[in-house]
Amino acid sequence: MADPAVAPQASHPKLEELLRHIVGLLEKHRLVETLVERDRTSPRHRLIESLVHRQHLVELQRKLSNLHPADVAYLLEALPQEDRLLIWRQIGEGRSGDVLLEVSDAVRDSLVEILERPELLRVLGSLDADDLAELADAIPEDVLADVSRNLPARDRDWLQTTMAYPEDRVGRLMSQDVLTVRETQRVEQVLRLLRGREDLPPNTDSLFVVDARHQLKGVLPLRALLLNDPARRVGELKLTDPVVFGADEAAADAARAFERYDLISAPVVNERGKLLGRLTVDAVVDFIREESEEDALNRAGLRGDEDLFAPIWDSARNRWLWLSVNLCTAFVASRAIGLFENTISQIVALATLMPIVAGIGGNSGNQTTALVVRGLALGEITPDNKGYLVLKELGVGLMNGLVWGATVGLFAYLLYWNLPLGLVMAAAMLLNLLLAALVGVAIPLLLHRIGRDPALGSSVLLTFITDGMGFFIFLGLATLFLV
Amino acid sequence: MADPAVAPQASHPKLEELLRHIVGLLEKHRLVETLVERDRTSPRHRLIESLVHRQHLVELQRKLSNLHPADVAYLLEALPQEDRLLIWRQIGEGRSGDVLLEVSDAVRDSLVEILERPELLRVLGSLDADDLAELADAIPEDVLADVSRNLPARDRDWLQTTMAYPEDRVGRLMSQDVLTVRETQRVEQVLRLLRGREDLPPNTDSLFVVDARHQLKGVLPLRALLLNDPARRVGELKLTDPVVFGADEAAADAARAFERYDLISAPVVNERGKLLGRLTVDAVVDFIREESEEDALNRAGLRGDEDLFAPIWDSARNRWLWLSVNLCTAFVASRAIGLFENTISQIVALATLMPIVAGIGGNSGNQTTALVVRGLALGEITPDNKGYLVLKELGVGLMNGLVWGATVGLFAYLLYWNLPLGLVMAAAMLLNLLLAALVGVAIPLLLHRIGRDPALGSSVLLTFITDGMGFFIFLGLATLFLV
Repeated sequence: MADPAVAPQASHPKLEELLRHIVGLLEKHRLVETLVERDRTSPRHRLIESLVHRQHLVELQRKLSNLHPADVAYLLEALPQEDRLLIWRQIGEGRSGDVLLEVSDAVRDSLVEILERPELLRVLGSLDADDLAELADAIPEDVLADVSRNLPARDRDWLQTTMAYPEDRVGRLMSQDVLTVRETQRVEQVLRLLRGREDLPPNTDSLFVVDARHQLKGVLPLRALLLNDPARRVGELKLTDPVVFGADEAAADAARAFERYDLISAPVVNERGKLLGRLTVDAVVDFIREESEEDALNRAGLRGDEDLFAPIWDSARNRWLWLSVNLCTAFVASRAIGLFENTISQIVALATLMPIVAGIGGNSGNQTTALVVRGLALGEITPDNKGYLVLKELGVGLMNGLVWGATVGLFAYLLYWNLPLGLVMAAAMLLNLLLAALVGVAIPLLLHRIGRDPALGSSVLLTFITDGMGFFIFLGLATLFLV
Repeated sequence: MADPAVAPQASHPKLEELLRHIVGLLEKHRLVETLVERDRTSPRHRLIESLVHRQHLVELQRKLSNLHPADVAYLLEALPQEDRLLIWRQIGEGRSGDVLLEVSDAVRDSLVEILERPELLRVLGSLDADDLAELADAIPEDVLADVSRNLPARDRDWLQTTMAYPEDRVGRLMSQDVLTVRETQRVEQVLRLLRGREDLPPNTDSLFVVDARHQLKGVLPLRALLLNDPARRVGELKLTDPVVFGADEAAADAARAFERYDLISAPVVNERGKLLGRLTVDAVVDFIREESEEDALNRAGLRGDEDLFAPIWDSARNRWLWLSVNLCTAFVASRAIGLFENTISQIVALATLMPIVAGIGGNSGNQTTALVVRGLALGEITPDNKGYLVLKELGVGLMNGLVWGATVGLFAYLLYWNLPLGLVMAAAMLLNLLLAALVGVAIPLLLHRIGRDPALGSSVLLTFITDGMGFFIFLGLATLFLV
């Protein structure tokens, strides 16, 4: 009898449907729990209901045990804190370590906080040195010390080696499971050695060729083993110009190289060319995704990762730094208006029109900044083309200033039937857009130069200047020409 | 004699250094060009200088021929338009197709626009059907038709099949180079077949098991060929529950699955389970990166991709849609001020303070929106937890409103020694922050519900409401209690 064809639906669950199913189970479970609590009189009823109760939990356990750890992690992220713990308790002991590896930083922190020390030790005990290195930042130091004491000496050394690198370096992302071969070995020998193994490390697309001192001599793609005559030697087949990373290279640069050269795995060496470990595409993909999500949240003024279902107090504190910075800049910008209160009391229309000048300036400047931030991230902006870029953006600002200045000027004129007011509005708009273009390029370049992440502070600083100067230019011109 | 160890520096060029080197060559080249033009009198001088001239170009060609097409693409992206064309002309004919595949959409468009039709046909002629499918959107339809006429019938069919899927579907990202095996084959037979091949398709970590009607029956990892006894059969070794994608699944969902399950390649089938093609991690990584960059630019109000060195006119037009939307919302929001010009003329301090209320509201709301947009993208927000989320954000808004309302109220009081003004300011701040929390959750949910990308329009809409309502609440309260 023929097997059925493999269907895509079954192979990877639709996450939203999965979540809805689990929420349904949780609700039934809670309903029964309420009934059991309410009905404390009849022992028989209580027995039946607690049986039903158990049954829901068993169904939950069964469902969870069929899921990939990454899918369980998704469920934890999508559930409020109380449900999260209930789900966590239904994961088999052997698998909870893998789930802890897969959840987002924010949810991991919340779980580590809740778990009792013995349970945490048990969960971490099931992980290897590579996994522990990945989790290290989330685990209290003393717990990590306890866990690493139980590791084999080799793994303990590895953990120390990789933890010595800062979080944004290749050394921190690399894993230790490398397969090495010697130049003198023949393909058939290597094949025999492989056949003696249980399995290959995940994402193994090549073996690393080393000499007796563990110096990297090249890379032998698995395909070379499959495509070539078994009698040939590794030395003839190895690639001598593979992409290799230094352990203290920036992880972001390595990620770019993985994209550019479509890599699956690559050797990591120390400064003397000794093979240390291996960087694989799954670690790189996770890195890229985390970076881009963190960037998006940071740009909106959230520090690092925030759990969607964090307690209110935690969430509020997570947002205060940014809001307080904003409050300060808003106050300072508003002082520009304070200078001209006398002018405003004579021409109140200015109060109505001034936010338009400031707002459009901010938006236009943010467009420029977004382009420059991306250009910096891609390494496309250099000392040689900075000047060109400033001139180009000033050109765009001039064109936008003429078009939108004329538009808002006309609008102001029609609204108040006041030609000088329209002209002042148009001129202020033009000047603020030119200013926005200039600082829109300058601010990210400056932050980059002093070693700060331009994606992070550019927008606040820019809006501060386009607001404050927008008010100042508009009200200043009005004071000169209208009063 | 021992080979030197492989060094990471040589394996992947530091892009900034590479760019600086190329710019140096271009400058020498241009200098000589100017000299040649200036000195038209002496034929001997001219001869020498044109030799020097050639020499720089040869050095440029040599340098470029040693680079990976992705690195050449990076150079094109980082150079202004005129230099871009000069570099393009120095790429060997055989490689320019690969470079065209690697450049960003914006730069690709600019190149396709500049190239004469015969050159474009020549470049595209060197590409296979998968590559052409990737470029299809950038190529004029008649050119594509001409090129595909020269393809073998099988490739032409493939091009039509994959082009029939929308851009955001798996079918558009898949490639046709699959290796298939039958269940009855033995490992040794498969190994012999592979050895008969020149090479394996890139990112091949598994072979696909099909029956006579090309129905997918499972997946045979390459590792299974290496680790098992050559006498065993494919049918015993195949994985029967691999991750499989439907050709009309959303590419974003597939990308998530690649991340969750750490995939290298996966089969793509049609709705009847017939194997159509293969999705590989390099296509997925490119997809993830492009999406996240596009999102970042879109959020700042740039339509799609913008070339850092696009002509001023193109850049300005690329930004007009967003600026005009912003202009409209800014005007409407400013009408809320216009309603209260009478109040402002009596208490001018209101004009100074009102941008603070509006600004902090917008920032706080944007924090909420950023979290909700991410939650939606990750599928973490469902009908079941929406209510919870609104309550939580209102809680955060309340807490922030009390803290920051008190702060700004105190500040306003100290600035103008006017207690009622301080109280009105504090109350307006609190109300606007609560409103910001509510619309900060509601807007992305609403956009998502009606099938729009919440990352795109949320911020404008939100700022519009927090500005307009911020002005209205503050000036309205002031009119009620202070006038």
